[in-house]
Formats: sequence, C-alpha cells, structure tokens
Amino acid sequence: MEFKISKEFIEKIEGLIQQNNITELESLLQDIHFADIAEIMNDLEPSQAIYVFNILNSEITAEILLELDDEVRETILRSLSAKEIAEELDELDTDDAADIIAELPQSKKAQVISELEDVEHAKDIVDLLRYDENTAGGIMAKELVKVNENWNVLTCVKEMRHQAENVTRVHSIYVVDDEDRLKGRLSLKDLLTTSTKTPISDVYIKKVDYVRVDTKDVEVARIMQKYDLEAIPVIDELDRLVGRVTIDDIIDIIKEEADKDYQLAAGISQDVEADDSILELTKARLPWLVLALFGGFISVRVLGIFEPAMEKHATLFLFTPLIAAMGGNVGVQSSAIIVQGLANNTITGSLFNRLIKEFSLSLMNGAFLSAILIIVSHFLFGFDYNIGITVSIALLSVIIFASLIGTFIPIVLDKYGIDPALATGPFITTSNDIMGILIYFSIAKAILGF
Amino acid sequence: MEFKISKEFIEKIEGLIQQNNITELESLLQDIHFADIAEIMNDLEPSQAIYVFNILNSEITAEILLELDDEVRETILRSLSAKEIAEELDELDTDDAADIIAELPQSKKAQVISELEDVEHAKDIVDLLRYDENTAGGIMAKELVKVNENWNVLTCVKEMRHQAENVTRVHSIYVVDDEDRLKGRLSLKDLLTTSTKTPISDVYIKKVDYVRVDTKDVEVARIMQKYDLEAIPVIDELDRLVGRVTIDDIIDIIKEEADKDYQLAAGISQDVEADDSILELTKARLPWLVLALFGGFISVRVLGIFEPAMEKHATLFLFTPLIAAMGGNVGVQSSAIIVQGLANNTITGSLFNRLIKEFSLSLMNGAFLSAILIIVSHFLFGFDYNIGITVSIALLSVIIFASLIGTFIPIVLDKYGIDPALATGPFITTSNDIMGILIYFSIAKAILGF
Repeated sequence: MEFKISKEFIEKIEGLIQQNNITELESLLQDIHFADIAEIMNDLEPSQAIYVFNILNSEITAEILLELDDEVRETILRSLSAKEIAEELDELDTDDAADIIAELPQSKKAQVISELEDVEHAKDIVDLLRYDENTAGGIMAKELVKVNENWNVLTCVKEMRHQAENVTRVHSIYVVDDEDRLKGRLSLKDLLTTSTKTPISDVYIKKVDYVRVDTKDVEVARIMQKYDLEAIPVIDELDRLVGRVTIDDIIDIIKEEADKDYQLAAGISQDVEADDSILELTKARLPWLVLALFGGFISVRVLGIFEPAMEKHATLFLFTPLIAAMGGNVGVQSSAIIVQGLANNTITGSLFNRLIKEFSLSLMNGAFLSAILIIVSHFLFGFDYNIGITVSIALLSVIIFASLIGTFIPIVLDKYGIDPALATGPFITTSNDIMGILIYFSIAKAILGF
Repeated sequence: MEFKISKEFIEKIEGLIQQNNITELESLLQDIHFADIAEIMNDLEPSQAIYVFNILNSEITAEILLELDDEVRETILRSLSAKEIAEELDELDTDDAADIIAELPQSKKAQVISELEDVEHAKDIVDLLRYDENTAGGIMAKELVKVNENWNVLTCVKEMRHQAENVTRVHSIYVVDDEDRLKGRLSLKDLLTTSTKTPISDVYIKKVDYVRVDTKDVEVARIMQKYDLEAIPVIDELDRLVGRVTIDDIIDIIKEEADKDYQLAAGISQDVEADDSILELTKARLPWLVLALFGGFISVRVLGIFEPAMEKHATLFLFTPLIAAMGGNVGVQSSAIIVQGLANNTITGSLFNRLIKEFSLSLMNGAFLSAILIIVSHFLFGFDYNIGITVSIALLSVIIFASLIGTFIPIVLDKYGIDPALATGPFITTSNDIMGILIYFSIAKAILGF
C-alpha cells in the first residue's frame, strides 16, 4: 500500500499554493506520510517547497528534511534561521541531526549548535561531527539503551524505561562497566523472567559483536549482513561504548556502494541521477569521455603505424572494430566479476591461480569464438583464408590478453587501496582497444609478413 | 569485531578431519559464529564439509544450512535423510524452511514435508511454497504477533507472550478482526501504559503500511526503504493478514537487484561469482560474447561498403575504432543513468522531454570533444584539415545518436515489461559500434564525396 503521487495531485497543490489556500492545503496533506510529502516537495518549485514546509505540522517537518533531495533541503535550510533549524534538529536522532549540520555552511554551523535546546543532545551531536563520515563513528547514533553490570535487574528496568524514551527502536540492551566499557548485552526476555534482585552481571550475555569508531562503513555493513544483526554497538579506542549503528543506515550504504560501482563501470565519475541538471550530468560524464578520447587518439596512432599494410591487406582494417570491441567486452566481463568479488570479500587465494583460471576460461571461450570467426569469414563472407586465420588467431590472443588484464588490474588496484571499480568501464575498454589493435596487427604482420 | 578465517586455520581443520580428531575439532569450532563456520565449510572439500556438519551441535546446523553457498548446501542436503532434513527445518523460520524445501529435488520435497514434526509449522511452510518467489508472498514469513481487535489489553498481553516465543524479533504487533483481516497495529508502549481492561479497539493505530501477497519483491523493498520500515505485514486477496516481510530479507533483494544490473551492464547473463566453475562462468559469459561477435560481423560488412574509399582516404579508417569506442562509451553512460533511475523509480515525466534534455547534454559534450578532436588531429597529428572536420562532425553526430539511443531503449524496454538493464553493456556498445561506423562514413562520403 503506497500513496501514488500523480501529476494531477502536484498540479492541485500548485493551484492551492497560488490561491494561498492554506486550510485546503493542510487538509490535503494531513494524512500523507512524510516520505511522500518530501517527494511532492522535490517536484515543486523552490519557493513552493518552502511555502509547503512552512504550513506543515512541526511534528513531521524534521522527518521531511531528512527525506528531501539534497538541493531542496539546501533551499529549505537557507530559508530558515539558525534557531528554526535548531528546533528541527532537536526533534531528530543525533546521527541524522549531525548529518544535517554537516551540510550547513561553516558560518551557520556554530550558530545552529548554540541554539540547540537539549544540552545533552547538543553534546552528542558535536561528538558525532568529529568522526569521518565513512566510518562507524560517522554513521552511528548516540541513542541507545545501556545498563551497568553492577546494577540489579530492578534498577536496570527503571533506568531502561527512562532511556528508552529517546530511542525509537531498542533492538538491544548493552551492558557496560563503571568506565563505560562494553561488556556484553542483555536480552529483554531474560530481564523479564529473572528475579528483580539478581545482579545484572549474573544474567548478561558476554558475547557481543561490535565495531570500532574507525571501522569503515562498508565493513560495518558487511559484518552486520554476515551476522544478520539489526544493530551493532560501536566502541572507541578505550573500548568505551559510544554509539550504535542500526540496520536502516546500513541499507543506504549497501545501495550507495552498489550504485557507485555500477556508475564507475558505466564511466560516470560521481553520484548523479537522471533528474540532475545538465551541468551536473556533464561534470559526471565528460571527464571519462575526455580520457577515452585521448585513448582513442593513441589507437589512431597505433593503427597509423600499420597504415602501409592497407594497400595490400585492406580487409584486415575492416576487422579492426570487431577485434577492439571483443577485447573490450571480454575485459569488462572479467573485471566486473573481480570487482564484485572484491566488494563481497570472496576473492581469496593466490593471484597466480586466479590468472591461470582466467587463462583457461578465456582460452576455451576464445577458441570457440575464433572458430566461429574462421567459418563465417571464409564461408559466408568469402574472405581470403589467410585473412580468416590471421584474424582468428588475433581474436584469440586479444581475448586472452583482455581477460587477464581485466582480472589483474582490479586485484592490483585493490591491493594498493585504490577502488578497483575504477578499472572497469571506459578505462578497461579504452586500454583494451589500444592493446587489441597493437596485438592484432603485430600478429597479422608476423603471419602475412607485410 | 569479526573472526578472520586464515589459510592456517582451514589447514588445521583439514588436518584434524584427517586424524578423525572429533574432540579437538569440536572445541575448535565451539565459540565460532555459525556464519563463520559456514564460510569455513564453503572452503572445505565436499566430504570434509559433510564431516564437519555431522559433528556440529544440532542447535546451529539449521542456521549454518542457510548461510552455506548453494553447491555446498546441496551437497550437505544430499547426504541427509528426509527425516534429518525435516529436523533441521523444524528449527527454522517458515520462510527459510520454505526456501530450503524449494531447492530440494521434487521427489524429496513431499518426503521431507511429511516428516516435519510441528504440524502448524508444516502447514505454514506448505502455504508459503505456493507463492512466486519474487513476490511478497515468496519472501514473507508466517511468524508474527497478532491480536484481535475485540480483545482487551490483558488477553492481548497473554496471547502475545505465547506468540512471541516463535518470533525472533517482534517489530510490530498487528491487529486483526474476527475474519483475520488486517485492521491496524499496536505499539508496545501503548499496550504497557493502558489499563488492562481497555479494549484493543480503543488503543490501536488504524494507519498501517502493508503489501499484498502478489506485490513484487523489489516493490516491497522500495516501500520499506521509503517509509523506513523494519517489517511490513502482507495481506491476501481477502485482506487477511497472512505473513510479514522483515528488513533482513529486503537487504538481500536490494543487493541482488543491484548486482544483477551491474552484471548485465558488464555482459554477464546470470548470477555468477569469481569462484564458480569455469563451465558456469562460460555459461554466463559466452552468450553475450557470441552476440557481440555477430554484431562485429555486421560492423565488418558495413565497413566493407566503404572499402573503396580506402585508397583515397586511408586516414579515415584510422579513426574508426575511436569513433566506435566513443559511441559505445556515451551510450553506456546514458543507458546506465536511465537504468538506475528506473530501478529507483525516479524516471517520471515525458519521454520527449527526457530526449530533449539528453540531446542538449550530448550536443554540449559532443561539441567540446569534437573541438578537442579537430585541434589534436590537425595541429598535433598534422592530419589534413578536411579529415579533421569530417571526423569531428561524425564524432558529434555519433555522440548525439548514441546518447539518444541509450536513453530511449531502456525506457521503451521498461514500458513493455522487459528488464531495461538488458539494454546496457554489450548490447548498447555493439549496436552503437555498427551505427557509429555507418554514420561516420556516411558523413565522410557526404563531405569528401568519395
């Protein structure tokens, strides 16, 4: 069940804004989920979005801020005073509030923080701001339920009730010592079925998964997925419990990571969407195209070396795009499998064995494709038999070369801490184009002797 | 904090298996998380994996089954009798149990089901088996906590305690009427702070998100993400509450969907991993390569049409790979952005407007790249000025054409219910190769008049 935003609905809202009909607008938006209102606002003109934001119930405006597209949120935040922003942030969990503060211009940050009403909340938010955004510290929230190992069950239940008020979803109760160091966790069931005088130290579970503040966010995502956790505690350098990461934060990371690899494979260098401005799309697309163009120039030069053969062996030149394309395709396949394997942490074992496997695979596939090529070029197209043989051998060589390069480069990049996804897409197709042409004509020269 | 599986550790386990040293093996594996044991088993020989499975504590074997790689799980299941499999399934949630039964050979399915001890559990599993695996019905579990709207709070709490025993994570309490139709949900807080005699109908929240049994799994994932839900109830054709989907199931779907698009874009036609057998990898890779090869033949033929021009304008042929590659790159970029937009449901508005936008974008980018091309080819390479102009105009045309095709095809495929990701990768590069060459030489012929 989902509210579907229709074009008519948007137009109706736009009409009501023009008529300045607040009552009608309020009643129209009353029963709509904040995520849907955010989507509607994304579709409106900036001034209209601000108008809608201002008439909304203050209970949901903070949530809406979180759901808006970046540009729309920026517009709204610009229209609000530091005090108004602080009021919104007071409604939010620490991690979400910190994310919004991080987006503010430097000058406004301190102002907003000083306007926060709840001092504890403000302290927690400031705490979060010092962590790198791609680490556990950067994605964790300070909201959690923790109890001291020296308490008894009764104190515990009382304290928990109090703490749980600020926590949307409890997930787990963490046990700490007097120094706030994480000792274990507690199941709600055990707590409710044990005598109220029992000390916590007798009932808590000493085994607890955790991550450190500086653990990379993708690593946190991987651990939570692997162990099927809905929340994981985060500890600092002194083993103190400082926050927890919940599963909804992880979903965004998993999606972003997958989207990023996909975009890199397609030659898009930053996170863009179809609805972004032409300028932003150009910024994301043009860099790789320029690189590919210069790669193309190299291929022109390389091909130029063999131009003298054109007179005697014109046919050879007809096959250049085919050879180059096949090299590109095979290279992309190999590198994609490796990049995905690296992302899922399944690439283990020696590089040498992996190259041997890829060699066998490409030898088999290449031999099959080369056989098709000989048959088609000779019997169907009627090309000279020598040409058929030459092109086939070149195709086989290029396929083997491209698949080895496609396997080798991502693994090596990863070893040196560079994102292996960079090695997919235009990079691999362009370099395989160049090498493919070079290999092709070198083999042709060796066989046909021009 | 994660257990790292080292090569040495695997070798130690292999050694203990050879010595048949069960005691040592048991103590070694005792404190290891089942997800890690599953990973270890994935790395062992089949006979060794079976050996380890058999000495493990029966409490964790069912969980391990879920975590194993498909082939290893198949091996283990083949080594177990129907009764033994049923015993494992009795430990699992209905959705996981149904997934495993679905993987069994037809003959064993009925046997295993008849051996299930808990009749209610068996009925639920059989129920789940009839849903398409890519729908809400196919991914939901029957385990949930529900109460009747006519009960009072006291009855409710009693019933809930009983039901919650079978539910790992409660998430939400659903409210149904006498016909089991979903009416709303209940917050645990309200339940605990209301007088025990209050009827449920006075306290429950009538607004509840839900999906239907036949809602597509990717749609369920989208809704849960959008509304930030950790669980969503599933209703059948008669609005009866029949199950619920939890967030951990959704993570797998989000990941699978992203991986699938990525693999299609790379010309890989089925879900494979780097560690799959050469045969499986070939099955996933060869089909697209064969298609690309036949696309290559067409490019040979098209280029052949213009062969007579080779004598007079040899230089033109040196640029063929460059033009083809640029067309491919631009086409992949455009289609990738559209495919991702379609996956995220952000492609709205008219196709015409989108093509106009893409046209403007590619006109800008193309003009920039063409300008570079003229300058480099004339001043750096010293090619004839006419050639530079010709190739530049061709490059601009090919870029515009490729980006329009890259935008148009995925949207049209999606409209007809075909996966738009099919239009990325080798498909778009190959067709752009062919069209690129055709456009290039047609323009050259018009300008240079050969």
